[in-house]
Amino acid sequence: MPVKTCNVALLGNKFMGRSHSNAWMKVAKFFDVPIEPVMHTVCARNEDEVAAFANRWGWQAHSTNWRRVVAEPDIGLVDVTTPNNMHPEHSIAALEAGKDVACEKPLADTLDHARQMRDAAARSLSRTFVWYNYRRCPAVALARQLCQQGKLGRIYQIRGCYLQDWAGPDTPLMWRFDKKVAGSGSLGDLCAHTIDTARFITGDEVSEVIGATMETVVKERVILEAGGGEISGRGAATSQKTGPSTVDDISLFVARMESGAVSTFEASRLSTGYRMSTGWKSTVKGAIRFILNG
Amino acid sequence: MPVKTCNVALLGNKFMGRSHSNAWMKVAKFFDVPIEPVMHTVCARNEDEVAAFANRWGWQAHSTNWRRVVAEPDIGLVDVTTPNNMHPEHSIAALEAGKDVACEKPLADTLDHARQMRDAAARSLSRTFVWYNYRRCPAVALARQLCQQGKLGRIYQIRGCYLQDWAGPDTPLMWRFDKKVAGSGSLGDLCAHTIDTARFITGDEVSEVIGATMETVVKERVILEAGGGEISGRGAATSQKTGPSTVDDISLFVARMESGAVSTFEASRLSTGYRMSTGWKSTVKGAIRFILNG
Amino acid sequence: MPVKTCNVALLGNKFMGRSHSNAWMKVAKFFDVPIEPVMHTVCARNEDEVAAFANRWGWQAHSTNWRRVVAEPDIGLVDVTTPNNMHPEHSIAALEAGKDVACEKPLADTLDHARQMRDAAARSLSRTFVWYNYRRCPAVALARQLCQQGKLGRIYQIRGCYLQDWAGPDTPLMWRFDKKVAGSGSLGDLCAHTIDTARFITGDEVSEVIGATMETVVKERVILEAGGGEISGRGAATSQKTGPSTVDDISLFVARMESGAVSTFEASRLSTGYRMSTGWKSTVKGAIRFILNG
Amino acid sequence: MPVKTCNVALLGNKFMGRSHSNAWMKVAKFFDVPIEPVMHTVCARNEDEVAAFANRWGWQAHSTNWRRVVAEPDIGLVDVTTPNNMHPEHSIAALEAGKDVACEKPLADTLDHARQMRDAAARSLSRTFVWYNYRRCPAVALARQLCQQGKLGRIYQIRGCYLQDWAGPDTPLMWRFDKKVAGSGSLGDLCAHTIDTARFITGDEVSEVIGATMETVVKERVILEAGGGEISGRGAATSQKTGPSTVDDISLFVARMESGAVSTFEASRLSTGYRMSTGWKSTVKGAIRFILNG
Repeated sequence: MPVKTCNVALLGNKFMGRSHSNAWMKVAKFFDVPIEPVMHTVCARNEDEVAAFANRWGWQAHSTNWRRVVAEPDIGLVDVTTPNNMHPEHSIAALEAGKDVACEKPLADTLDHARQMRDAAARSLSRTFVWYNYRRCPAVALARQLCQQGKLGRIYQIRGCYLQDWAGPDTPLMWRFDKKVAGSGSLGDLCAHTIDTARFITGDEVSEVIGATMETVVKERVILEAGGGEISGRGAATSQKTGPSTVDDISLFVARMESGAVSTFEASRLSTGYRMSTGWKSTVKGAIRFILNG
Repeated sequence: MPVKTCNVALLGNKFMGRSHSNAWMKVAKFFDVPIEPVMHTVCARNEDEVAAFANRWGWQAHSTNWRRVVAEPDIGLVDVTTPNNMHPEHSIAALEAGKDVACEKPLADTLDHARQMRDAAARSLSRTFVWYNYRRCPAVALARQLCQQGKLGRIYQIRGCYLQDWAGPDTPLMWRFDKKVAGSGSLGDLCAHTIDTARFITGDEVSEVIGATMETVVKERVILEAGGGEISGRGAATSQKTGPSTVDDISLFVARMESGAVSTFEASRLSTGYRMSTGWKSTVKGAIRFILNG
Repeated sequence: MPVKTCNVALLGNKFMGRSHSNAWMKVAKFFDVPIEPVMHTVCARNEDEVAAFANRWGWQAHSTNWRRVVAEPDIGLVDVTTPNNMHPEHSIAALEAGKDVACEKPLADTLDHARQMRDAAARSLSRTFVWYNYRRCPAVALARQLCQQGKLGRIYQIRGCYLQDWAGPDTPLMWRFDKKVAGSGSLGDLCAHTIDTARFITGDEVSEVIGATMETVVKERVILEAGGGEISGRGAATSQKTGPSTVDDISLFVARMESGAVSTFEASRLSTGYRMSTGWKSTVKGAIRFILNG
Repeated sequence: MPVKTCNVALLGNKFMGRSHSNAWMKVAKFFDVPIEPVMHTVCARNEDEVAAFANRWGWQAHSTNWRRVVAEPDIGLVDVTTPNNMHPEHSIAALEAGKDVACEKPLADTLDHARQMRDAAARSLSRTFVWYNYRRCPAVALARQLCQQGKLGRIYQIRGCYLQDWAGPDTPLMWRFDKKVAGSGSLGDLCAHTIDTARFITGDEVSEVIGATMETVVKERVILEAGGGEISGRGAATSQKTGPSTVDDISLFVARMESGAVSTFEASRLSTGYRMSTGWKSTVKGAIRFILNG
């Protein structure tokens, strides 16, 4: 059976590079997809690391030259999992090379960069998407169906929260706490998912932010001496010295939606005892509650 | 054994009059109290109703003349459970007659009236309290103790919500939807409890409201023809005609506390599937989560 | 309005005496009952204690002579809350004096005594009931209605459990651990409720016990020196010496019902972290799950 | 880096064949394993199906001749995911060919066959294991550690249950309901897991079955006309005719453990509303509760 395929180039070989490799590897095994992804090339800065990564996850080639990779004629789709501040350059270059682009969230480090990416996508003929993966969570997909079919009636209120607890005062100063690299903290990392999920389920859009705050609660963190440790920084080697965290640990806002519904969004990396998100919608006929690792 | 007692006068014989009668009747049976309440007089507008109420609940006397009752020399404490817009007049008269006053929440129908009540209390020698009864819920009292003892460490965030679902579009236009009588809707009825509980547990105070909204979602409701029905209006006789609801069904705000913690407060009478409240505090060492009929 | 009344005599002034006093005091306040109970006489062994109890809870008279009380012409109903081994003598005497009898569970200390009580009730014209109070829990009453209306379809399986955790090795040798007084441990104290609830909800009866065990896990307990302490024995004064516990801490059985459904029943006083019961029924159309303080 | 590898042969290409393929494919990607599995050959009865399966999941070769495959010199481990009644022949042949064997549960269709497999394993030098995969669930592994470290103290009681709801009266007569093929129903399919988990966590063994029952509740089911449909038989083409189900839908037993602890085990395929298992252990110091998709 002749199968349509698409050669994928992955930029980045850290946590998300691993997650996406797993997804590319499995999608055509569990699902019958119209186009089968081919794990063509992975690209990252460290030659040894990227070679080992390619070998482990089954990428056919590896590279440390992202410009060459995104320009390569064989590549159909570029998957961007690099640090947030690299998303704009990587994505725009790929778009300009005529590739389809799948970019990790948050889309960009600044609003201005996000708009440049939007414009570059609009100018190109490529297809793009952002990795709001909760859309493919079966419960979320079902919630959207129920909502679109009118089974919930009028939506009065949306409550979205994404609470984690890994960023206490002992967590070291990883790149996630550096505004220049990460752009934001809980807002882009967590709340972005919740906002997207609310939009996806209801089809509604935020029309007005009534009030909002972003808090940097832990203002100084110990400096990392070397790599290692977990995603959360636990177990990493650290210095005695501290440096400033420049992103928000908690972000909260109250908003009005275009439909007239009101909403609260809460994201926190300091929510002791929580790992994941919960959302909720209130309506005439029904309500939806989604708790993942509540 | 000679026991110290206090004669209580109850104003109001509806839902809260019943709840308070139950409390006055039982408190000295389940607990050893320094002063035993005596159920002296209940006062309400309808002679027949108040006579039956007194007989049923064991009040020694009844009256339809609240002015005479609050002035009666034998009375030590006046318990105000009348509609919200009557709280100021009833409470201030009782204070001026030298009585201790226990007033239902919300304290008053307007901010101006609440300040008059505060000033009257300050001028008097009487003791006063507002019926924030969740303070006596064992879980809340324990939460306060844990917090006061420093067992939770620094409080980062307070999340308070009180969600009910009885005020859908089919609920008739009871006094609770009339701003002149009720003062407010979800804010005074529900959120007042949550704000008080947060203050009680943490000892912290709101210093700034960052953003807030109060929504009248169901703008017209069918007019009540007669009494009857449940607290929620279910089963009451209604007209075909509708009238405007003038209070908020949903109230939401983001606030900063004096300690620097941030907070969200949500109250709703339109939360399908919910009956009661949940709160939560995030800290270095621990977190508290309280769900009553969650 | 002339109201029909019934004079109640309460035997016993401990935990259940208190609970029942609360019930007799409130039932006609919260509900419109066809016959109003009158708290006529409370009877217990200690003169001072029973006098204080009567005063506190509002019993009109008190006595230490139960034989005289159950024979008193004015009394209409005798409420038996004495230790389990006293139930037969107290209940049968009351029945023979022509009184209605409400007896606490477990009905008796031995099967033989229970049968004597059943026969005495059958011989008399009195009405009787056992205090299986969960029947009046609104969720249980609703479950019964759903079941009786056929809304659950055929019942395949009943799972009943009642788990508590107060009887660890540190709990002293209270009367509840003395087979002569209590008759049994977890079986009569806890499992009796669950068996009754299953029967009440489904209308089904146990036809065969397939396998069962009753375990005395903690075989020796420290002897109580004096009264005091909580229901659970916590805080009571104890000796250094120990004595044998002669009742079951855990009881388990698998049974078949008359309908053909199979069932498991579990009761334990050693279930760390549990306070209360959960039950469950499996069916074609639906299932019921009831958790009280789960 | 020279890596030690092991060539795996998979027998069976249905639900478990798929699950195991996923596991063999991913284990060396997510974990650093001492021996890397190589997906060498998959073997099943239908030539076309097994070829497509091999292609989809990345098996290097495929075959329809299991005898040749288990004898192949290159193969190090044979993974048996065939129907339950084939486990004995397939496993024993593999053992006799000197291969390591990983066999799906339940081990065999009859007790006699299970003993033959045990004896064949004892006679060989091969390593064997049964796919009790819950042992690798992180929560279960942690529970075992806590238990082995004595952190739970003495175990009083074990409650194991595995409840599913897919086998209602509308589910067709799949091989899972045929005693000749499946050996048993809920007992081998579900309860086997729970018994193993209890043994794995506590290190304790069942010493006496006090009472047990296995119930075939749905005695006749519609006959399958063709393949298709889900694991649960939903969506499969069916005849109008019915045939007898010869396995248990519900299995229940009360047992005593070697340590003296008592236990209940419940498994059901008719538990409306349930998908998965819950277990629980009661102890002096602590308790463990594990609910997966509760």
